[in-house]
Parts: sequence; C-alpha cells; structure tokens
Amino acid sequence: MEPVGITLVKKELTVDHLVLILDLVGTFVFALSGAMAAVRRRLDLFGVLVLSFAAATFGGITRDLLIGAVPPAAINDWRYLAVSLLAGIITFFRHPTVNRLATRVLIFDAAGLGLFAVAGTHKALSYGLNPVMAALFGMVTGIGGGVARDVLLTEIPVVLRAELYALAALAGATVVVCGAALQFPSALVSVVGAAFCFGLRYMAIRNS
Amino acid sequence: MEPVGITLVKKELTVDHLVLILDLVGTFVFALSGAMAAVRRRLDLFGVLVLSFAAATFGGITRDLLIGAVPPAAINDWRYLAVSLLAGIITFFRHPTVNRLATRVLIFDAAGLGLFAVAGTHKALSYGLNPVMAALFGMVTGIGGGVARDVLLTEIPVVLRAELYALAALAGATVVVCGAALQFPSALVSVVGAAFCFGLRYMAIRNS
Amino acid sequence: MEPVGITLVKKELTVDHLVLILDLVGTFVFALSGAMAAVRRRLDLFGVLVLSFAAATFGGITRDLLIGAVPPAAINDWRYLAVSLLAGIITFFRHPTVNRLATRVLIFDAAGLGLFAVAGTHKALSYGLNPVMAALFGMVTGIGGGVARDVLLTEIPVVLRAELYALAALAGATVVVCGAALQFPSALVSVVGAAFCFGLRYMAIRNS
Repeated sequence: MEPVGITLVKKELTVDHLVLILDLVGTFVFALSGAMAAVRRRLDLFGVLVLSFAAATFGGITRDLLIGAVPPAAINDWRYLAVSLLAGIITFFRHPTVNRLATRVLIFDAAGLGLFAVAGTHKALSYGLNPVMAALFGMVTGIGGGVARDVLLTEIPVVLRAELYALAALAGATVVVCGAALQFPSALVSVVGAAFCFGLRYMAIRNS
Repeated sequence: MEPVGITLVKKELTVDHLVLILDLVGTFVFALSGAMAAVRRRLDLFGVLVLSFAAATFGGITRDLLIGAVPPAAINDWRYLAVSLLAGIITFFRHPTVNRLATRVLIFDAAGLGLFAVAGTHKALSYGLNPVMAALFGMVTGIGGGVARDVLLTEIPVVLRAELYALAALAGATVVVCGAALQFPSALVSVVGAAFCFGLRYMAIRNS
Repeated sequence: MEPVGITLVKKELTVDHLVLILDLVGTFVFALSGAMAAVRRRLDLFGVLVLSFAAATFGGITRDLLIGAVPPAAINDWRYLAVSLLAGIITFFRHPTVNRLATRVLIFDAAGLGLFAVAGTHKALSYGLNPVMAALFGMVTGIGGGVARDVLLTEIPVVLRAELYALAALAGATVVVCGAALQFPSALVSVVGAAFCFGLRYMAIRNS
C-alpha cells in the first residue's frame, strides 16, 4: 500500500517503536497487577518478583510464539525484565495496605488488557495476518497475562469470571484493525483502542 | 516415496483437508466439553464462550507450535473460532439441565481426544517426524484441550485422574502411524484410529 | 571468536552433546519429582507417568519453543520419553513410603532446576543470544518443569512459594555465562553452575 520503499521502512520502524512502547507500558501495569495479587496472597519478595515477571511477559511471549517471532521480545530484551522487576519492587515496598488491593489488581489488569490487545493487533498486522484474525489475535494476546497470574495462584482466571472481559479486548483490537484499514495514524488509533478497552472494563468493574 | 510431483501435491492436499476436517470436528466436541464444564461451574455466557475456545483450540495450537507451523491454524483460520463459539452458544442455551453434565463432558472430551490424536499424528507425519515420535506427538496434541479446560477451572486435569487416558490417545495415534506405514487410505485409518481411542475411553468412563 | 571452522564445528558438537547430557539427567530428576508429587496425591500408575513426562519435559520444551528450535528435542527424541517413563515406573513401584516425599520432591526439583538452568543457558548462547539474556533464559527454562508439575496438581508453584528459587536458577545460569565469556571448558562450567544452583536451593530447603 506504500508507494515508496523509504516510506515503508519509516512506517515499519514507527509500528515497531509503537509496539515496543505499548508493550513496555503494558508490561509495567500487568507487573503491578501480578505483584499486587502476590502481595494479597502474602508471598515473599522473590515470589512477588516472579509473579510480576510472569503476569507482565506472558501475554507478549504468547503473541510472539504464535506469530513465530522467536526468541520473544520479552526474553530477548532486558527492558521487559527491568520494567517487571521495578513494578514488583515498588509494589512490595510501597503498597500502603493489603486491603482494597483486589480492585486495584483488576484496574491495572484492565489497563494491561487494553495495551496488549492493541500491541498484539499491531504486531499481527505487521506480520501479514488478515484484519479479522489480527483482532482475534490481539484479544488472545491481551488475555495472556491475567491468565498466567491467576493460574499460578490457582484461581479461576479473570477472563472466565468477568463479563465482557474478552469482548473488551476484542473491541480494543477492532478499533486498531479499523483504524489501520482507514489509514489513520497508528499512535492515535492505539490510544483510542486501548482507552476504549480500558473504559469498558473499568465500567464493568465499577458496576460489579 | 511418491513417484511423481503431481501425486505428491494431490496427496498432501488430501492430508491437509483431512487434518482440517478432523481438527474442526475435534474443535467442536472439545468446545462442547469446555462449555459444559463452564456451565457446571455456573460461569456466565462470556466465560462459557472463552472456555469453549480455550478447550477447543489448545490442542491444535500446542501441536502447531511444537512443529513450527506458525501462526497456528486455530488462530489463522476464522472457522475454528466460529465452530468454538457455535458450540458454546448451543451449550449455554440448550443444555436441558446441569445434572449429568459431568459424564457428558467426559464423553465429548473422549471424542475430541481421539480426533486430535489422529489429526496431530497426521500433521506430524506430514512435517517429516519419524513414526514413533509422530505417535507420541499425536498423544500430546490430543491431551492439550482437556488440560487447558481443567487447569483454567482449577481442577486436576482428567489426564491425571483417568486411567488409560493418555494410553487411549497413544493407541489411536499408533493406528494412524501403522496405517500410514502400510499405505492404507488416510481417511479410513483416521476413522479407525479415532474410533479406537474413543472406544477405549468410553469403556473406561462406563466402567468407572 | 573461533579462528578456524573445524574448531567451531567441534565446539558446537561438544555443546550439543553437553546440552543433551544435562537435559537427560535433568529430565530424569524432574521426572522423579513429578512422579513423587503424583504418588503423594495418590494418582494411579498412568497419572504418575503423565506427570513424570510433563514435569520432565516442560522446561526443555519451553526453552526450545522460545528459541525457535522446533520440533522440541523432548518430543523429537525418544530418549526423553524413555527416561521420563523409567523414572515414573521406578518411583511408582519402589517408593518405600509416601511419608517424607514432600522433601524429596523438592530435592529432585532442585537438581532439575540447576541442570535445566545450565542447559538452557548453553543452548541460548549457542543460538546467539547475548549473555545477559541467555542467563535470564536459562532461569526461565529451569523453572518450567516445576511450574508444570504444580499447576497440573493445582498447587501454587514452588517458584512462588520458595525464597531464592528463581535467584538460585539465575545464579547457576550466571556461572555458565561468565565461564563462557572467560572461555573456560564447558563441562567444568556446567558442573559448577548446576552444583551452585543446587547448593543454594538445598540450603534453603534444609533451613525451612
């Protein structure tokens, strides 16, 4: 669709950077959700850090495995580990109280859901998947982190307990797919998609 | 082993179609087993649909990841999603009663086990794995869906609780491997292999 | 870094053999830990064998998927299956008593942790990952088997419950990375790294 090679290269770099930024912010908020869930279950510092890393990277690792991008970015790039550990350490030493962490876990989980759904959709599109499948793919990617966190703590994953969870991820991914088809700027589309997904989940959490 | 290229192409197409059919039927029955397990645990419609999709596609996704066929068919082809959602919706609105669903979960699980064990073995053979490993591979593939369903519901997977579960999958896979070595028609071999696996599991369920 | 091609080939073969040996011994001890955990939960022979195989091969399969070495060695090579089943059968028929198996599960788990952390680091280095990521990679690989075993039995994985678990794996992996950078003999480095990791875990188990 791009007329000249130089533009294509520039655009791909932009999408790569965009995916990296969305990934790292998503990693941070999912790591917060994992660390808070671990603190709630009274794990020690090391358990908290491991759960931060697992919750933060499972979505991205799943995405990269499914599209054949190996080794996955979350393992091949030290920034993912650094961001996960930072979130874990902050949570462990700074959580004022264990009460009300349940709601906070869900809110950070919702933010990660939106960010990874959008990042996964972008990456799937850039690997040449068709739009419908790219959206499905973004949904699966977004769900990964929360599933890993809950399965490791032997809880039924939030995606099975919460109404609209998977649908919210799919809605965010659909925004990205439609925006890409209409050639809207990627950054704008990403912000709208992630905010839309987060907003749906936030309202569901507030109302329950 | 094929003398002319045209025959090779035709044969590969046939195996591809066969794997697709086995996959889609296996997807449907595993989705039914996942949906029924979710209904039994009183999840809402969205949870039921997610569990349908997870139980239905996990075996095939595992197989495709293990042989390097990425992106996996279950994500790259909309029919898997459609079949999973259909099974989930039917189960949610049509299950007459929650009673006795436990046995039905196991029976549809047994059907999926046989179908995926056979499909996994075919696909592994067509990717050039040797016969012994292809059978092992089919077994692992068949087990995937049930493990995903049970782990997500925080139950010990049926493969660990049920006698002969893994052996039944291995038996079905072995039929396929022997049939392929003897150059029997793939479709016939598949039906016999899947029926053999299902029969073994069905008798075990009846007797327990 | 190698001046002549012939040396490179020879060195790669050596690392391949080393990884195979570390893998098979790690497979055996993780299979023992899986089998004992299954016996403790009073699973029958088939369940014990499946859990042996899952605990034994999950770390290596995870590693191979993450670096793109498909099909994974644990499925493509019959020796992994044979070693897993042997460990499962020995455990099922020879465990003198179910008491005190909890501690033994942890000790064999610690041995597997060290062996897979070292093997994973070697393989990651030979696939061209940079040293810091290779160590992280070895850590993730070592953790896999224990996570699979505990998740399948619906227990919180030992990596989340035990202090220093992930750090011990990282320490063993770091020994390998430093040894490789200093061009020390691979076999020596592997033994020291695995022993260091095992020693850290063993002390933690004794003190708890």
